[in-house]
Amino acid sequence: MPNGTFVYDFSEGNRDQKELLGGKGANLAEMTRLGLPVPPGFTVTTEACRWFLTHDEEPPALRVQVTSALRRLEDSLGRQLGDTHDPLLVSVRSGAVFSMPGMMDTILNVGLNDASVQGLAEASGDERFAWDSYRRLISMYGRTVMDVSPELFSKALEHAVESAGVASESELSADQLRSIVVIYKEIIRTHSGREFPQHPREQLDMAVRAVFQSWNSERAKLYRRRERIADDLGTAVNVCAMVFGNLGEDSGTGVAFTRDPATGSPGHYGDYLANAQGEDVVAGIRNTLTLDDLASSNPAVATQLAQTMRRLETHYRDLCDIEFTVERGKLWMLQTRVGKRTAGAAFRIACQLLDEGLITEDEALARVTGSQLAQLLVPQLAQNAGNRVLTRGIPASPGAAVGQVVFDPAIAVEWAESGRNVVLVRRETNPDDLAGMVASVGILTARGGKTSHAAVVARGMGKPAVCGAEALRVDEAERMVTVMSEGEQIVLREGDFVSLDGATGEVFLGEIPVSSSPVSRYLLEGMDAVLPSLNEDDAAAVLCVDRILKYADTVRRLRVRANADSGLDASRARHLGAEGIGLCRTEHMFLGERRELVERVILAETSTERTDALAALAPLQRDDFVEILREMDGLPVTVRLLDPPLHEFLPDRSDLMVRVALAQERGEDASADEKLLIAVNRLHESNPMLGLRGVRLGLVVPGLFALQVRALAEAYVELVRAGGAPQPEIMVPLVGSARELRLMREEITGVLAEVSEHSGMEVSMPIGTMIELPRAALTSGRIARAADFFSFGTNDLTQTTWGFSRDDVEAAFFAAYLEKGVFTISPFETIDEIGVGRLVAISVEEGRKSHPGLKLGVCGEHGGDPESIHFFHRVGLDYVSASPFRIPVARLEAGRAVIVAAAASDTR
Amino acid sequence: MPNGTFVYDFSEGNRDQKELLGGKGANLAEMTRLGLPVPPGFTVTTEACRWFLTHDEEPPALRVQVTSALRRLEDSLGRQLGDTHDPLLVSVRSGAVFSMPGMMDTILNVGLNDASVQGLAEASGDERFAWDSYRRLISMYGRTVMDVSPELFSKALEHAVESAGVASESELSADQLRSIVVIYKEIIRTHSGREFPQHPREQLDMAVRAVFQSWNSERAKLYRRRERIADDLGTAVNVCAMVFGNLGEDSGTGVAFTRDPATGSPGHYGDYLANAQGEDVVAGIRNTLTLDDLASSNPAVATQLAQTMRRLETHYRDLCDIEFTVERGKLWMLQTRVGKRTAGAAFRIACQLLDEGLITEDEALARVTGSQLAQLLVPQLAQNAGNRVLTRGIPASPGAAVGQVVFDPAIAVEWAESGRNVVLVRRETNPDDLAGMVASVGILTARGGKTSHAAVVARGMGKPAVCGAEALRVDEAERMVTVMSEGEQIVLREGDFVSLDGATGEVFLGEIPVSSSPVSRYLLEGMDAVLPSLNEDDAAAVLCVDRILKYADTVRRLRVRANADSGLDASRARHLGAEGIGLCRTEHMFLGERRELVERVILAETSTERTDALAALAPLQRDDFVEILREMDGLPVTVRLLDPPLHEFLPDRSDLMVRVALAQERGEDASADEKLLIAVNRLHESNPMLGLRGVRLGLVVPGLFALQVRALAEAYVELVRAGGAPQPEIMVPLVGSARELRLMREEITGVLAEVSEHSGMEVSMPIGTMIELPRAALTSGRIARAADFFSFGTNDLTQTTWGFSRDDVEAAFFAAYLEKGVFTISPFETIDEIGVGRLVAISVEEGRKSHPGLKLGVCGEHGGDPESIHFFHRVGLDYVSASPFRIPVARLEAGRAVIVAAAASDTR
Repeated sequence: MPNGTFVYDFSEGNRDQKELLGGKGANLAEMTRLGLPVPPGFTVTTEACRWFLTHDEEPPALRVQVTSALRRLEDSLGRQLGDTHDPLLVSVRSGAVFSMPGMMDTILNVGLNDASVQGLAEASGDERFAWDSYRRLISMYGRTVMDVSPELFSKALEHAVESAGVASESELSADQLRSIVVIYKEIIRTHSGREFPQHPREQLDMAVRAVFQSWNSERAKLYRRRERIADDLGTAVNVCAMVFGNLGEDSGTGVAFTRDPATGSPGHYGDYLANAQGEDVVAGIRNTLTLDDLASSNPAVATQLAQTMRRLETHYRDLCDIEFTVERGKLWMLQTRVGKRTAGAAFRIACQLLDEGLITEDEALARVTGSQLAQLLVPQLAQNAGNRVLTRGIPASPGAAVGQVVFDPAIAVEWAESGRNVVLVRRETNPDDLAGMVASVGILTARGGKTSHAAVVARGMGKPAVCGAEALRVDEAERMVTVMSEGEQIVLREGDFVSLDGATGEVFLGEIPVSSSPVSRYLLEGMDAVLPSLNEDDAAAVLCVDRILKYADTVRRLRVRANADSGLDASRARHLGAEGIGLCRTEHMFLGERRELVERVILAETSTERTDALAALAPLQRDDFVEILREMDGLPVTVRLLDPPLHEFLPDRSDLMVRVALAQERGEDASADEKLLIAVNRLHESNPMLGLRGVRLGLVVPGLFALQVRALAEAYVELVRAGGAPQPEIMVPLVGSARELRLMREEITGVLAEVSEHSGMEVSMPIGTMIELPRAALTSGRIARAADFFSFGTNDLTQTTWGFSRDDVEAAFFAAYLEKGVFTISPFETIDEIGVGRLVAISVEEGRKSHPGLKLGVCGEHGGDPESIHFFHRVGLDYVSASPFRIPVARLEAGRAVIVAAAASDTR
Repeated sequence: MPNGTFVYDFSEGNRDQKELLGGKGANLAEMTRLGLPVPPGFTVTTEACRWFLTHDEEPPALRVQVTSALRRLEDSLGRQLGDTHDPLLVSVRSGAVFSMPGMMDTILNVGLNDASVQGLAEASGDERFAWDSYRRLISMYGRTVMDVSPELFSKALEHAVESAGVASESELSADQLRSIVVIYKEIIRTHSGREFPQHPREQLDMAVRAVFQSWNSERAKLYRRRERIADDLGTAVNVCAMVFGNLGEDSGTGVAFTRDPATGSPGHYGDYLANAQGEDVVAGIRNTLTLDDLASSNPAVATQLAQTMRRLETHYRDLCDIEFTVERGKLWMLQTRVGKRTAGAAFRIACQLLDEGLITEDEALARVTGSQLAQLLVPQLAQNAGNRVLTRGIPASPGAAVGQVVFDPAIAVEWAESGRNVVLVRRETNPDDLAGMVASVGILTARGGKTSHAAVVARGMGKPAVCGAEALRVDEAERMVTVMSEGEQIVLREGDFVSLDGATGEVFLGEIPVSSSPVSRYLLEGMDAVLPSLNEDDAAAVLCVDRILKYADTVRRLRVRANADSGLDASRARHLGAEGIGLCRTEHMFLGERRELVERVILAETSTERTDALAALAPLQRDDFVEILREMDGLPVTVRLLDPPLHEFLPDRSDLMVRVALAQERGEDASADEKLLIAVNRLHESNPMLGLRGVRLGLVVPGLFALQVRALAEAYVELVRAGGAPQPEIMVPLVGSARELRLMREEITGVLAEVSEHSGMEVSMPIGTMIELPRAALTSGRIARAADFFSFGTNDLTQTTWGFSRDDVEAAFFAAYLEKGVFTISPFETIDEIGVGRLVAISVEEGRKSHPGLKLGVCGEHGGDPESIHFFHRVGLDYVSASPFRIPVARLEAGRAVIVAAAASDTR
């Protein structure tokens, strides 16, 4: 419940009050507190907004609180709102907890009316300025408060410019502007049925209300959905004394960063425009100057600005971005915040601040994120290739994609099959487009955000995507897309080349070379090999990544292993920092050339036939294991026994049925296929994911798991004899009850004993299980007694806990579910803490309780997801296992998880 | 740990010590305590046996305890084991906690040797008897202790009978028997390499050990597996002074029941054989007499026996069966226990004992079971049809099946398609036989027990089955089965008729008429309509079922509803006592003639097409609802919105592919099929159970659920206008998160409001959800806030919690899992308490906590399973919903659950 205080003077708040005062308000208060030159003002809280949105009226106490805040403001400046001599004017700006740039309303120059405009003219000594300000107020007010179409005002203005025979509105005279004010007021009267209010306080109250309401404008709602910002936060409103950058050449306005946000290199960066207001900088009407130019034209202000920026950076201990205005030689700070930066800059700035003693190593680690690191790892478009930026969309799935534009999924499939790289361009995608999406190297849509069908599916497939590039006019029937780019209309047709950057949302014309990123090259090839070839910024970024990643390694409790199925993967993973393999699938050992042997195993009609076929597979499997164990020598390698149902190794049933039917129709001999079809029918399952697989297969098909265990044990013997230190672990998949694992453990132990006897070498290894069924989690106390370790298979656990299979549903309804808010993020991307995560927590607690030495890890894809890694840290796992290229991310986030958890427990 | 006492005198124990003394030992002790004439003796405990089985030797303390128990026995009788004048002989019998008739060993006449046999002859005055007893000891001992093949003894005996030129062994003289003893001892010496031991104590100790060991004989293990008796219980051993029924015409032996166990009618029933031992009664060598015969030949003993039986029944307050021996006019009780009875007798006896004041109403209810009632409900083979009993097997799945024998599953399918009723006869079944099992009316196997593949699959399909009929010699290649029946070899060939009783395990030759059972007729037609047509026993059973069922209704807290999808089902369910419908599926409303409309909905390319097709379906759905609600007027009807994925309403994909391929091959027009195939491919799911179904469908396919809700609301309006009191409830399937339900609830409420407005009648109804996904259970606290009720869909919840689909796995590995002890019973039959049940418990607790008025029920098939009903009672549900024919079972068990739970909490 609100505490009853809805209005805070800038001098009352601080930067920690973002939830109450919004980001802008909290930082204005902070700067005021620091004694920086902030125009005085006050903030109406987000609580007031939430009240308004719920009750459809302002909280009763608000009016009197605004009155007293306003009086304080007037007293401090010695000016009155609406005064006919030297009137106080205020700006009314939104300021939400999370930045939503341009999404909500702003009204400037509040307080002007037919009388005070004269006072402003008098006080500023600039009549034109006064009437121009009044005109601006009326149009802004008309649009935001009185719901009058802005086009009406702009047309009237254009007309006046034409009539006056001048080039632009800035050349209009005071008298001409005065006429426009008359016209504007008439427009409001006609289109809203009401007068533009002359009472300054009414203007103020209605402006505040309009900002409240703009929280729920369509574009604001859309933006929030895309950016996953909660709908019930509301916005604060900042009421601030106006200062003017357009009072002559000794006035001006600018934006600046305390360091370069693109590369992270030190030194201030910014744009300045003399004799202009903030909007003019944003609108890009005139070419801006640099801060160096300001230093030469106005050294005192420039010095003050530099000092202020240093002060802010020291105070915030981070890169800040600011907005400022110079009014007749006096500097005013209008806004500051911790600035956004690129991924590379984030690492570099964190290291700089650390070296400058502003932050600790822990803080430096907390300042970077796994998703920033992930951006630095994906292949990149060559920089400065000079290609034209066609448009920008939402960066929906990272990575670089270069290919030929196609509009039709069927053509995408066709072209891809003929070896071409295609980029599928659609207005938006739907489940019918899936095949085309699979065939494409990248996806580009005109509509939809990060949770659109295209984005969800692309991320699921690990494919670059740019979505919601709204400037694109996609004509799927004509197979063309048109876009206004830098004032020019460009047409793309089927077959034209584009290049997408899924991390930035940029779309370029033509083919841009794609290369491994400097950071991934350093990780795979080593610092010394890569550093000489890098430019200064890349080199700096790589060194900083190295430094922070190594620090994360010293901090983290979670070990990081890799999901890797081959020697090559294992080697790569080790370079990327893997401390073992958490999931070595053995399915691939049954594919390729071995398919025929596997078919013989499956189709065996006698146990001798089966045994023979298994025996032929054994040496091949052993060699696979030797290769992997050798690459990971000295580190644990968790081998999962065969998981998929046997029919996955046989031909597709429908295809076979068609083949048999056609052969019969043609009178050809189909006996081999018919025999195969009988077996396929026998093994057919309507829901193979819920069928005869994993440990069930091991218990029902004699010799199958024994084959694998024997091959692994023999590989172990071979490597130990060669002087190695292999550390295999055996993992039984899909266990649902303790007895399954006990039975399997008996069989495994028996095989190991046989190999021990044969080889004369003691062969023993940890035996554990996947926890990937709800029942396994729920009965972990029992299962743990038969297990040396648990590894959470969170992919399958997510599928069974939710009762959906990723293959089937991701395309079918995930986008709709994200749109409708059932998911805030796909549960396959980040672990669903209250459902799946609760099972993990139950399992950890009850497993450890009944078996205190139990080792616990996770090998689902969540093992490489930043948010999920924090959860796994909190819940107390020993390790996460991730695909090789997520390992650096996992190392970093495992370290961050320690810092973040410690910080959370400090504040608790 | 054993407390160190391994031997209890009969005078020390009581009937509550079955776990320690075994069933036989505890009851012998109880009878001793009651002062009934039990020959003195002592019991070696199950603990001693378990120790022996674990350590492979007797517990050290056992020897001295046996010594002192034996001394007490000798002292009380004044006779000594092995005495040369009047020796004490003892029997050594197994006695497990659960009866395992004939499975373990017995050794009689222990204590006889070359010297004491003379003493026995002297004391009994019957030399022939003495040598016959000695002969019996040697052969029993040789077989059980010394591992000599029993055939060697029986052949030697046959040879002696032949040589003596007599008809049977009973005509052999004392001298001839003496010679046989010499031969028997020689057999033992030759085949075991050891002498038959002359030391009586050695005989005793080795006999006890042999009984211990017989616990783990193959046949005992097999029996336990079939009967689901734990393998680690062990058996007690009863050592009892011998009494002899074969000492002349004033001696004899018999078995008796205190009431008729077949019909439950009052009065003693039994068999008596003069001048005979117990084995002779069992072997059926001579025709037995009735107890009435005994009364005329030996009235004093008969009277004492009758009094004893009355005493036992009063004491045990239940039907008892007994074994007794008369030794020279003196009655000895050798065994008693609460007797087995048929299902009908169980109800009748419970009522009788109640009327006699021996038991309370609660106890009467506890004395009968739901599975007994279920037996009384299945169709029955006509009694006294006179057909020959071919053999008996394990009653694996109840019900009557009459049909023609087939041995080949393919022929079963073929014949069934041509309209014949077939009974599939196999040595044992495996997953390949599934189609044949589906096609058959009943299944008969020669091997396997209640957990065999055939049994599990048959129960899953609700099909009668008799398994493990080991007398059958099945020759599948020759398509014939031979069986010895009453000494005659009978051959059955393909096409011959048999009749199976799956409740008793009986297999009859020929066709026996099948009819509804008297109990089911009474339930459906009413008592008055049925009673006159029944014989006395059936009438009594029906009256008793009625009485106990009505009592259960007064006791139970759980309400009982039906799973019913049509007016007919609803009406039937109401007769059977349903208090509403807990699950009305709506899938069938999309089948049959409506398929075409449904196809139009699915294939619609525009929303108009879809809306039109939906509109055409609406009135049909409304009529369905009217019919069901009318039948259940005044009672709640829970309607589940559409659950299955849409492709279930379209043709099979593989079939369609074949059709299209063949049409193309033939150059025929396949465009309609091709169009259909595109849609089928689009909707194809690799795991439909985990796909786009339930609430997902409702949220993704516009108008689908609204159609159903509108139809239901309109049906409601129609019925209320006609003066009815319909009580529909809307159930949303497959909810996994609270938001899904909230969204669906909004849509449903909107539709109801529309119908309210249209009709001018307030239309509102409870809206709830299935809890059938682990995530729903785990987030019940949230979901409950949007739900008026939860209904546990324990079928799907079992499938997702375990991660297997019933369709795929029941045939594939359930039998193996039961065999291996992973399951003790199929989790689809009885709820898996520690896994699935734990989720139910979590959901109940957290759902109620966040929504105190939440109504809770279950609509999975477990709702009709006795053991599961007890769980649902304990966990606090409000109702169970079961298929109509399980409703009486559910009513009964819901009542019993109250009694059993109260008893359990009393003893706690």
